[in-house]
Amino acid sequence: MPPDAVGTAGAVAVLPLPGMPEVRPGDDLGDLLCRAIDASGVALVDGDVLVVTQKIVSKAEGRLVPVDPDDPAAKAALVEAEAVRVIRRRGDLVITETRQGFVCANSGVDLSNVEEGWAALLPVDADRSARAIRAAVGHRYGIEIGVIVSDTFGRAWRRGVTDIAIGCAGVAAVVDLRGTLDANGRELQATEVCAADEIASAADLVMGKDRNVPAAVVRGVPSSWLRPSSVAAEIIRPPAEDLFR
Amino acid sequence: MPPDAVGTAGAVAVLPLPGMPEVRPGDDLGDLLCRAIDASGVALVDGDVLVVTQKIVSKAEGRLVPVDPDDPAAKAALVEAEAVRVIRRRGDLVITETRQGFVCANSGVDLSNVEEGWAALLPVDADRSARAIRAAVGHRYGIEIGVIVSDTFGRAWRRGVTDIAIGCAGVAAVVDLRGTLDANGRELQATEVCAADEIASAADLVMGKDRNVPAAVVRGVPSSWLRPSSVAAEIIRPPAEDLFR
Repeated sequence: MPPDAVGTAGAVAVLPLPGMPEVRPGDDLGDLLCRAIDASGVALVDGDVLVVTQKIVSKAEGRLVPVDPDDPAAKAALVEAEAVRVIRRRGDLVITETRQGFVCANSGVDLSNVEEGWAALLPVDADRSARAIRAAVGHRYGIEIGVIVSDTFGRAWRRGVTDIAIGCAGVAAVVDLRGTLDANGRELQATEVCAADEIASAADLVMGKDRNVPAAVVRGVPSSWLRPSSVAAEIIRPPAEDLFR
Repeated sequence: MPPDAVGTAGAVAVLPLPGMPEVRPGDDLGDLLCRAIDASGVALVDGDVLVVTQKIVSKAEGRLVPVDPDDPAAKAALVEAEAVRVIRRRGDLVITETRQGFVCANSGVDLSNVEEGWAALLPVDADRSARAIRAAVGHRYGIEIGVIVSDTFGRAWRRGVTDIAIGCAGVAAVVDLRGTLDANGRELQATEVCAADEIASAADLVMGKDRNVPAAVVRGVPSSWLRPSSVAAEIIRPPAEDLFR
C-alpha cells in the first residue's frame, strides 16, 4: 500500500504538500508544484484534486503591489481600486464586491504571508490560473486532475474564516442534485452543493494559515464531480438573486 | 497498517460510517453510532472527530413534527414557529434567525430524508447533543474524541450549500490565531478560523446528501484543535457585530 493510500472504501484523504520555496513573480508555478509533489512522495493519480492557495498564485502572477503598512490610507486606496462596489463598511472593516465578482473583506487585498511593504491582490482570473496549473501538472504526470485555487473568506452571520474556491478547473464548482432522491424516495430540498468550497475547506485542514503549506491534494472525491468545464465563477450568486447586497 | 490509516505526515483522512439503520425517536444514538463504527472497521483513536448529521440527531431526539407536504402554509407555519426573526423573504424562500441563533433558510425545517408527512426541526441544543454523543462513544472505546453535529446551510453571495457545524463538543469551534506569525514573521490578518465548519465540510465529501451516510470520522486534525469546552454556539456572530441582518 502506498504511504498516501486510504484503504477504507469511500474514504477521502487530504495530503499536504509542504516544502514549496518562496514563490516570486514570473515563477513557473506548475513546475514548482510538481517539484513539491515529487518531494512529498505523494504519487498523483487520476481524479485527485490539487488545491493551491491564492497567495502563491498571486505571487507567481506578479499580483503584488507596494504598500506602506503603517499608512492605513494607502491600504484603503488599494481596497477601493480592487472593488466595484462597497457592500458594507464599519470602522476599518470594508466588505466589497471585487472586480472578479467576489464579496469579501478588503477586496481580498492581503498583507499576510507577503514581504514587508507589499500587498497581494487576488488573481485577475483564478479560473484561468487553475486551468494553467491543471494543464501543467496533468501533462507532467499524464493524468486528469482537478485544480482549485483557494482563498480565505469571512462569512455573514458566522464567526471565523474558512477556505473557499476562487478558481477551479476540472472539478465541479457547484454539484447539482436536482432530481436526486433521498433515502425515502423524495426529491432533495438542498439541490446545489458547493463541492469546490467543501474541498477547499478540507484542504485547509492540512494547510492552515500558520503552517506554511500552500498546497494540498484531496484524494477520493466522487468521480462525478470531476468535469472539464467547471469554473468557480459559477459559484458567484448573481446580484439580482442575492438578498444580501 | 490498519485499513483506515493515512501514512503521509500531516495528512487528514475522512472516513465514512455507512450502515446506520433508520433512526427513530428515542433511539440511543451513541449506541447506534458505536455499532456503525464497529461494522465499518474504523478503529477510533484519540483525537478523531466524529461528525454526525443533524438529521439523525433530530430524529433520535424526537424533533419531528407532522406536516402536509402539499400544504405550503403548513410548512410556512412551522418555519415561523422556529424563528425569532425573519431576516429576508423572497417568494418561497425565507431566511430566518432561529431560536438557537442560526441564520439559515426555512429555520432549518427540513422535509428531505424524513418520512412522508413529517418534517425535521433543528435540535433544541446541538452542543448538548454533541456532548452526549462524545460521552457515550468516548466511554465505549476509552478515548477522547471530538464530536460535531453538522447541517447543510446556504450562504450569502455564494451559490450552493455547504455543511457547517451547529453543535460541537471536544473540538474547537473557532480557532484563534491572534498573535500567530506568518512565514515572514508578521502577525496574521485572518485571525479566527472556523475549524468546526471546515471539518463539517470535509466530512460532507464522504457523506453527500444522496448517499445515505449520516456520519463520518475525520482523523488527523491538529491536536491543538481538540479541547473539552468548545461549543458551536461560539460560531454565531453576535447580532450587534453582524453587518448582514
